[in-house]
Amino acid sequence: MVAQTCTAVCLPQSLIALDWFGTAAFSFSGTLTAVRQDMGIIGAMFLATITALGGGTIRDLLLGSPGQAFWISDVRYFRVVLTTCIFTLLCWPTLTRLFKFEDSSWPFCLADALGLAAFAICGARVGLDSGVGIEGASLSGLLSACGGGIVRDVITNEPPRALHANRSAYATPALIGAIIYVCLRESGFFSENFALWTGFGCGLAMRILAFSLDIAPLRAQLKESEWQQILTPKDHRARR
Amino acid sequence: MVAQTCTAVCLPQSLIALDWFGTAAFSFSGTLTAVRQDMGIIGAMFLATITALGGGTIRDLLLGSPGQAFWISDVRYFRVVLTTCIFTLLCWPTLTRLFKFEDSSWPFCLADALGLAAFAICGARVGLDSGVGIEGASLSGLLSACGGGIVRDVITNEPPRALHANRSAYATPALIGAIIYVCLRESGFFSENFALWTGFGCGLAMRILAFSLDIAPLRAQLKESEWQQILTPKDHRARR
Amino acid sequence: MVAQTCTAVCLPQSLIALDWFGTAAFSFSGTLTAVRQDMGIIGAMFLATITALGGGTIRDLLLGSPGQAFWISDVRYFRVVLTTCIFTLLCWPTLTRLFKFEDSSWPFCLADALGLAAFAICGARVGLDSGVGIEGASLSGLLSACGGGIVRDVITNEPPRALHANRSAYATPALIGAIIYVCLRESGFFSENFALWTGFGCGLAMRILAFSLDIAPLRAQLKESEWQQILTPKDHRARR
Repeated sequence: MVAQTCTAVCLPQSLIALDWFGTAAFSFSGTLTAVRQDMGIIGAMFLATITALGGGTIRDLLLGSPGQAFWISDVRYFRVVLTTCIFTLLCWPTLTRLFKFEDSSWPFCLADALGLAAFAICGARVGLDSGVGIEGASLSGLLSACGGGIVRDVITNEPPRALHANRSAYATPALIGAIIYVCLRESGFFSENFALWTGFGCGLAMRILAFSLDIAPLRAQLKESEWQQILTPKDHRARR
Repeated sequence: MVAQTCTAVCLPQSLIALDWFGTAAFSFSGTLTAVRQDMGIIGAMFLATITALGGGTIRDLLLGSPGQAFWISDVRYFRVVLTTCIFTLLCWPTLTRLFKFEDSSWPFCLADALGLAAFAICGARVGLDSGVGIEGASLSGLLSACGGGIVRDVITNEPPRALHANRSAYATPALIGAIIYVCLRESGFFSENFALWTGFGCGLAMRILAFSLDIAPLRAQLKESEWQQILTPKDHRARR
Repeated sequence: MVAQTCTAVCLPQSLIALDWFGTAAFSFSGTLTAVRQDMGIIGAMFLATITALGGGTIRDLLLGSPGQAFWISDVRYFRVVLTTCIFTLLCWPTLTRLFKFEDSSWPFCLADALGLAAFAICGARVGLDSGVGIEGASLSGLLSACGGGIVRDVITNEPPRALHANRSAYATPALIGAIIYVCLRESGFFSENFALWTGFGCGLAMRILAFSLDIAPLRAQLKESEWQQILTPKDHRARR
């Protein structure tokens, strides 16, 4: 999900490793979604690619990065996605049967959370490197982390999980992690590494907390009862 | 929604003001949609951004504008959207209760229509400035005005309002306004200002008429009875 | 669907003709979809454009082609789409009544298959010309051929036909044709023309076979019974 600008020179090796790990984790999640939707092999590869690499692609389009999408010029990302997808298709049923794996059990959620936090920080870094301000870089991190999942959900005709309030917080940890990193770094008082790992840690911790305690994101219904009176659902729209 | 090329030099101040006004109006509409879909705060911000700025972003991608999306390089657009979104989330229930506001009442529809016409004209102008022909510039205006709403509807899994015939005309006024502006200007007989305001006025008037009289757009079913005989719905597709 | 780089110099005239023919065939398919969805005239033009030109546009965005979308700089593509759309809206009911045409009968499926194969080969060629590797060029062919249809299905809130296993193979022939062309050409043993027509022929033959015999694509459920035990549908996702 991270662009080619994030080489070993500018990001710690360990964060790059987490970024690769997240690519595989998101590809796994996209593949399972495709199988549940009764898609074919090409559908599974397509959805795995979009889930893992779509967020970074949207980010690069908005940032105006010239040239090919990062995963086409650095084809290793694409290969990681395809390998994970094929491995999942071949081995997941056996692994599930033998070891009682479930994709909602904690190792997979932890992998997903690690990927989410790594994508958010790397995306925010790409935004800062492009010279956008604090808002732009935070949005860049959010898009890197959640954009792929939103497109995946739109393609499978489901309400985008990252945007909805009735599921545990997903976009909020990514955004908060990115904001913390960007603010710490732009303040100038802290080292790059401190900012990176603090942002990453906060995002990861929030996501794990949200998952463990099933905390929904801050809801839009700040005065819920009042909103409820207003929302006689769907009829406003139809009247127009 | 208008790109950064539309500075005070090339567009009348009053049209630029209408463009800003439209950005806020579309952001308001996106926020209400998000709340009705039970999204969280981030979901509301996301949908407000897409509704207000998505059309211009798609237009710029198709026109090949280099560099960052216009609302990332000129971050004021993004700030207007976020401010409107937060203000709506905080104050809309109270305003509704106190003043019996409804988002389908005429002041909001007028605001929406003003934004629609301003986006169409400014978008067509951006297209002309990019050196595309009459077709390209008209499409550019249409996309600026309706693209954001279409993406919003796709994300919320609703049929895109701008494309459907059973709702009052939405895309038609934007397209007609853009075409009138482009043709008047390219004809060379009229001043820029005259072309701008004539196109804007026609688009606005058509949208208001369509809303007031509940006129559906020109329907595709030109010979409706014949189409009806053909359309034994959905079964063609399934057979393939 | 092919970019402006595919001029008469670099592609045989007959393949270019097939590319134009495919543009019209896909536009026809998009128009019928729009009418079935009860869209207006602008909705039909919009959906026809997306179906016929959307795949190539996505491909060019990912390949980082500079400048305007290919169908805006070479406006003939856009005109072919609009002309086909309007002709279909006007004449299809009459033609259906007089000649008992059905869009699922074999001449239309053959036209669709010709377009699919031509788009895949031309798209792969554009990828190779951009200097991407074998994976990138094959994906480029797949996206050119299927991207437009996927976006069309997403907009109309249907499961993307190209990605699903329970419909006859659609993406597989496009991908295989593109891979055969790319591999033959990159091997260096064969002439450009031989590679082009072999890839085209294989893609076309596979699509026609798949349609005639109603072959579903290679299914993801390689060990279907095992997958079935795992997939207690939708509940994994809800638990998260």
